[in-house]
Formats: sequence, structure tokens, C-alpha cells
Amino acid sequence: MNRRMVLYRVGQIMCLEAVLILLPLLVSLCYKEFFCTCSFALSAAVSGFLGVLLIFVFKAKDKVMFAKEGFTIVSLAWLLLSLIGALPFFFSGEIPNFADAFFETASGFTTTGASILENVEAMSKSMLFWRSFTHWIGGMGILVLVMAIIPTDSGRSIHIMRAEMAGPVVGKLVPKIKDTAKILYVIYFALTIVEIIFLLAGGMPLFDSIVHALGTAGTGGYGIKSTSIGAYSPYLQWVIAVFMVIFGINFNLYYLLLLKKFGAVLKNLELWVFFGIIAVSTVVISVDIFSIYGNVGDSVRNSFFQVTSIMSTTGYSTADFNLWPSLSRSILFLLMFLGGCAGSTAGGLKISRIIILFKSAWNDIKQQLHPRSVTSVKIDGKAVDNGTIRRVNIYFFVYIALILAVFLLISFDPFGLETNLTAAVSCVNNVGPGLGAVGPSGNYSGYSDFSTVVLALSMILGRLEIFPFLLALNPHNWVNKNK
Amino acid sequence: MNRRMVLYRVGQIMCLEAVLILLPLLVSLCYKEFFCTCSFALSAAVSGFLGVLLIFVFKAKDKVMFAKEGFTIVSLAWLLLSLIGALPFFFSGEIPNFADAFFETASGFTTTGASILENVEAMSKSMLFWRSFTHWIGGMGILVLVMAIIPTDSGRSIHIMRAEMAGPVVGKLVPKIKDTAKILYVIYFALTIVEIIFLLAGGMPLFDSIVHALGTAGTGGYGIKSTSIGAYSPYLQWVIAVFMVIFGINFNLYYLLLLKKFGAVLKNLELWVFFGIIAVSTVVISVDIFSIYGNVGDSVRNSFFQVTSIMSTTGYSTADFNLWPSLSRSILFLLMFLGGCAGSTAGGLKISRIIILFKSAWNDIKQQLHPRSVTSVKIDGKAVDNGTIRRVNIYFFVYIALILAVFLLISFDPFGLETNLTAAVSCVNNVGPGLGAVGPSGNYSGYSDFSTVVLALSMILGRLEIFPFLLALNPHNWVNKNK
Repeated sequence: MNRRMVLYRVGQIMCLEAVLILLPLLVSLCYKEFFCTCSFALSAAVSGFLGVLLIFVFKAKDKVMFAKEGFTIVSLAWLLLSLIGALPFFFSGEIPNFADAFFETASGFTTTGASILENVEAMSKSMLFWRSFTHWIGGMGILVLVMAIIPTDSGRSIHIMRAEMAGPVVGKLVPKIKDTAKILYVIYFALTIVEIIFLLAGGMPLFDSIVHALGTAGTGGYGIKSTSIGAYSPYLQWVIAVFMVIFGINFNLYYLLLLKKFGAVLKNLELWVFFGIIAVSTVVISVDIFSIYGNVGDSVRNSFFQVTSIMSTTGYSTADFNLWPSLSRSILFLLMFLGGCAGSTAGGLKISRIIILFKSAWNDIKQQLHPRSVTSVKIDGKAVDNGTIRRVNIYFFVYIALILAVFLLISFDPFGLETNLTAAVSCVNNVGPGLGAVGPSGNYSGYSDFSTVVLALSMILGRLEIFPFLLALNPHNWVNKNK
Repeated sequence: MNRRMVLYRVGQIMCLEAVLILLPLLVSLCYKEFFCTCSFALSAAVSGFLGVLLIFVFKAKDKVMFAKEGFTIVSLAWLLLSLIGALPFFFSGEIPNFADAFFETASGFTTTGASILENVEAMSKSMLFWRSFTHWIGGMGILVLVMAIIPTDSGRSIHIMRAEMAGPVVGKLVPKIKDTAKILYVIYFALTIVEIIFLLAGGMPLFDSIVHALGTAGTGGYGIKSTSIGAYSPYLQWVIAVFMVIFGINFNLYYLLLLKKFGAVLKNLELWVFFGIIAVSTVVISVDIFSIYGNVGDSVRNSFFQVTSIMSTTGYSTADFNLWPSLSRSILFLLMFLGGCAGSTAGGLKISRIIILFKSAWNDIKQQLHPRSVTSVKIDGKAVDNGTIRRVNIYFFVYIALILAVFLLISFDPFGLETNLTAAVSCVNNVGPGLGAVGPSGNYSGYSDFSTVVLALSMILGRLEIFPFLLALNPHNWVNKNK
């Protein structure tokens, strides 16, 4: 593996993180939180110094990048991003335990939104802003951002995009990766601004609007109140719910809309399955919780909000769904696995994978009945190649194995199966809240440092869809020819 | 599909069930439970009448059997076996609700051992015998029994064996299926007798010994006391624990032992992984529960018993493991998924599938790193063909989807996630007890009739490893050419 180049690229990302930390630093100046300003400045300095050092030492001549380099860069970058991103919380003393700070930051970048904070209202504004800003950075992917803004001279960066973008197949919108990355970020930025405007229009304060828009856009879920979105008006809850759906949709479709290819958008199977699951779940839960709220409006709003929040893996809440009846809780638990559409900022398995899994199983049944017939799995009229089907099936196994392994590791803590299992499912799928002690009104502060770190790593594994990490960790990768 | 032949074969099985019911009928005569005798006689009459009717009406000329006929016969047979097997409980009034009686019988035949009985001690001896005898019949498979004893003139019965025998690959021990079936039943019968002798030697009464040996052999788990095996001496607990391991091992290995091919047995990867998981789990749980029992002997015995019981999917218990610490409970929960070895009477995913899943995932990682290299998954020195790998991966998805679907359907009942999820996992994997309300000291009586039927069907689906059922239910199967 081309180690020099890997470390050189990681250096670039550290430099970028230093620049990004300047934004919450500005916020801390606005709110006169000078102790926070120092913490941000120090963190930016550490990040920048590390970055410059790496770039200087490992100045790569050979910039050819293969799959393994791409996967290793992404894995290393995400680990370091979370470690360094935790410094402001740690330096400022607002999260005095570094394991907790790492958890909080990994949860931010991976757009999970799980928190160890017992009293979020006690945090300073600039720290709250940094927490939510990590959602926005991590949502679309920091390496996609690097590709969009830093000049690259290699055409191989599709490997990085594949590792960081979610879903079974990652394509380019336009021939050049760099342009694709730019288009994605422009759409992302524009939609975020639109949401801020809608929230301001409903009377939400500017700071709250920005923070919640960042959290929604990245499908993260960090709020600034212990009741999450429950304290805001029904209008604001509807706005956020609708934008959670919007950010759970494949961004390629927005590009197609811009190109006025409405037909292609309407024919997208994943989109309709996504809408279908939201609709059915909302209706069933509305009926199930009707007795709690006593009127259709509140039942539907709370149901729709929770369904879109869990399914887009955002994790905001308007109600403590941990107190809802079994059926509603079970539906929400299952929705945690699904996630949004491929190519969105959502986590989870992704709807397109679910479609491929069901279609390939169905295909297998047909083939067992008629062994000589030749059948193929088709989506949106195109045949899915066998390699993709195999990879999706293997991914599913590795994904379930990861969830169960995380569940086992955090079982050293004395919580029950409900809490531990939903914590594992929620973190791996980057949702945020679970059930039991980690439900919407609870948090992850009860876990030991060991479990906290395990859960934080599981979020990163889940965000990168596991394989880049496994590939990067493969010892063959590090032993063989080091150029 | 050749419907006549399917119904003809199902008729044969109904006749066999009528004969099998004569055994508990004899038991009822021994214990002078004459009301039970009438119930068994009536049930045998119904089964025999139905069987003869089907054989008479659908006398097949064309006995050629393809995959779809095999799968349909097995699916139909298992449904009818459970429905008719429930009649003695229902007629005698010992289980007055038919849905409950169906659950109890399906749980018996599928060797699950989950019970709706709130007071097992109140049952008559002959009913207790019938309950446990269904385990023995279902353990090796009733169609395998049919093949062993009824003359068949078709060489295609491998399809039936594939549908009923557990594991990713089903092979023949000897060239003829009929002889393979006979050998398997002889080994099965002999091992059961050996266990009875060991139990008698420990002072267990004859009736108890027979019932528990039948329950162990089929890896079922129906006992005759509300404390399961907890009331018996440590020696008897060790005997049952060891035999649970024995019946969780691939029966092909016993045949190899008889042929003195010790080398092949020792090189069997699945066996060592099975032993390894039992050993590690036993050690970890022993340490975890040491504080409860206060001495090494009791901790190790209870740990080993519970681990082998869950892993072999038997479901006997010596302690209420629902009260054990989180870590032990989590390990037992994960063991429910694994199950025993392929070709044993155990349920679950089967160790060989787990091995194939891990190896194929590892293979995929290697291939992503070195796209041009050709690698294959090898087990015991032999390459596993791609078709098997694909089928195992697809099976895993369908299996998880089934568990989650069952969990969702039974969530209409107001139990928590722990109870509902472990009930679904336990039933689909044919284990028996779960955690929470369905733990070792609880039972399934709290579920509604709807959930009871869903769980009973999920046991049958799990026992037949889902696909035969899906293939049989495929509408194409029934619409096309009816000879």
C-alpha cells in the first residue's frame, strides 16, 4: 500500500478540520464565550499542526490510489476527525471525560445523535453549535468535501467516494468526481438554507433554527433542549419532519429534478418504497397511540414525526416513544434497521439494499423451482449484476454480526436486553435514541467508558458501512510492499 | 406440479401418525388413564381415516418427484402433523383451547419445547409422553422415517430429505437414500437408549428417564416438572447436558465413527467450532454467575447445562437464567441464533452456515483488495461452490427477516421488547424458552390466540428452514400444469 499518500491525504483532512473548527470559534466570539474560544483555538491549532506535519513529512510523489488506499484514508480520517473533534469539549471541561467527548463527537460526525449529556441545556452555545455542525460535516462526508474543494490530480478518487457515500452502488452524476462532489454539496447547502428559512418563518430563534437545520440536514439529531423538538410548535415539528424525509432521499434525484428529468424521479422504486414504509408505519402507529393523545391531529403528528425521525436515522423526538404501546415501539425498532435511501445523508441499511435483498431471495426461490431458467434481479428496469447482489448479501450478514457483537460487548454493563440491544442497533445504524434507558428521555451516560468507546467505534463502522474499516485493518494491507 | 402424488404421500404420513399415536395410547392403558385412551383412539382414527382417504383417492400412477413436489409434501405434512397431533390434547380437555393445543404440538414436533402449560405437573402421564414423543419424531424428521420404513420406488426422495434435514448441504451417507435414512434412525434410536440407561443408572424413574431421553434426543426440551431439570441430581443434570451436546453433533460423524474413520471426524471444522463456542461460553458464564452460586462446581454445572441446552436448541433448564447478569443473558440470547451442527436434530442457523457466512465475508474482503485474484471458500479441505454460498447468504437474510416479522406480529400483545423478541428468536430457532415473561420460569400462555398461532407457524418455518414453505406457497406451483 502507498502509505505515504494515505498519510498525506489524512494530513489534508486534519488541516480542513482545523479550518472547520474556526466556525464554532466565531460563534463563541459572538456569544462572548471566551473560555470556549480558547478551547476551539487550541483544538484548531492541534489539528492544523498535525495536518501540516503529515503533509510536510509524507509529501507524496506517487498519487495513484487504489481501493485499499481509498478505504484506509477514509477509515483513518474518520477516527482522527472524531478524536480531534472531541478536543474542544474536553479542553473546555464541558465534557470532562475524554471517552465521553469522543463518543459525543463520533456520534456527531456519524450523524447518530446519541448523547452522553445529562443536561444539554447547561452547554454553552458555541459547543452546541459545534456538536450540530459535526452532523452537517459528517452527513455528506468530509472526504467528499475535500474532493469538492481541494484540487486533485488523480482520477481514482471514486474509491474514496465509494467508501464514504452510503448505499450498495455509488455512481457519478457527471463524468468528473470533483464536479459530482461539488453538485452534491451545493444541493446539500441549498436545502439546509431553505430549512432555516422555514424554521425562522415559524418563529424559531436564529440560533435554534441553524442548529436544528444542521441536525436535520445531516440526519443527525442533536438538539439543544432535553425534550428535543417537543418544546416547539406543531408547525415547526411538521417542518422538521418533512425535512427529515427530504434529507433521507437520494440526492441524485434532486440533481435529476434540476435537470428536469421528472420521469426518472417518479420511476425510482427506492423512493416509493421509502414513502410507502413511512405512510404505512405512520398510519399504524397513529391508530396505536390514538388512545394516548385523544385526537387525530396530535396522534398523526407525533407518529409521522417519530417515523420519519427514526427512518431517516435522525433521532429527534417530539414525544417519549419509549412509553408508547408495544406495537409502536416494535415498529420503530424495526425502522431503525431500514434507514433512508442510498445516496442520502441517512444511515441504516438503506432501502435499496432491502429491495435487493428481497428481490434476490425471491429470485432464488424461482430458480429453485425452475433450475434451468435464467432470471435476474432488476431495479428501475436495469439488471443488478451478480457481484452487487453477492456484496449486498454479505454486507447484511456482516452488519447483523456487528450489531450482535456490539450488543455482546456492551452487555458488561448491567442494563437489560432492551436497552443494550436497541443501543447497539441505534448506534450501528446511526439513529441516536433507542428504547429503555437509552430512549428519547434517557441518554448514554450510564454506560462505562469501555462501552462508550465500543459504541462510538460502532457508529463509525456503521457510518462507513463496515467494509472500508475491515479492509483497512486487514494486515496484508500493511505488511506488503510499502512504497 | 404433480398434486395427486403430493396428496398421496401426505396420506401415507397421516397413516403413519395414526400408528405413532398408538404408542401414547399404550402408555395411557399402562397408567389406567382411560379418558386419555379414548382421546388417543379417536385422534388415531381421525388421522388414519384421513390418511387412507387421501391414499385411496389420490393413488398416484406417476411417482416422479421434483424439488417442488418434495417441498410441498414436507410443508403440508408438517402442518397436518401438528394439527392432528393436537387432537389428543384437545379431545381430552387437558388443553381446552385448540390454538394452544396446536402451539404445544407444533412446538413438540419442531423440537422447540416452548409451552403454553401453566402447570405441567397437572397433565396425565400419557399426554406428557405424547408431548415428548413428538420431539423424538420431529427431531430426525418424520419423512426421513417414512423413507426408512415405507418402500419407495423413486430415487428422487433426496428432495424430501433436503427439505427436512437441517443444514446448508445435505448429502447421502450411502448411495441409497432409503439406507441413509435407516442408518440415521438406527443411530438415533441407539443413542436414545444409551441415554435412558445412563439416566436410570442415576436413579431417575423409568417414565422420567424415557421422557427426558426423548426430549434430549430430539433437542426438544419438554419436561415433566415446572422446574425442568432443576429438581434432579447433579449427576442427572450432567448426563442430560452431555447428551444435549451429543445430539447437537452431525449424525454423519457417528456413521464415520462406526466405519472407524476417526481422522475424518477429528478434521471436521464444524465440530471443533461447536465445541469451541460451548467451551468459551461456559467459561465466561461460569465466571459471570459465580457470585450467585458461590462455588465453582455449581457455577460450571449450571453454566455448561444452560449453554449446551440453548446451543443445541433443546431448552431444558436447571436454573432461572432470566435472573442471571446481563452478560450471561446476552450470551445465551446470541447462542439461540447459532444452533447445533448441520445434520443433527438441533435447530438454529447451524454452525456450518455460520462458518460459511464468515468465510465468504472474509473472502469478499480479500477479493475487494485484490480484484484480480481468484479465491474460494474452503471447508474441511473442500471448496464450497458458489451456489451454496449464495444460498446460505440469502437464507440468512430470509431468516432474520422472518424473526423480525414474527416479532412485529406478536407485538400486538402488550409484552416488552425483551419478551417479544426473545420469543420470536426462540421459536424460529426451535429453542423453547426466551427471556422476560417467556423465560425458563415463565411460559407462552400469556399470548393471544393470534400470537400463539403465529409463533407455532414460525416454529414450523424455522424447523423446515423456511424455503420449503416459501416454495410450496409460491402460486406458480399450484396454477401450472396439474397432472
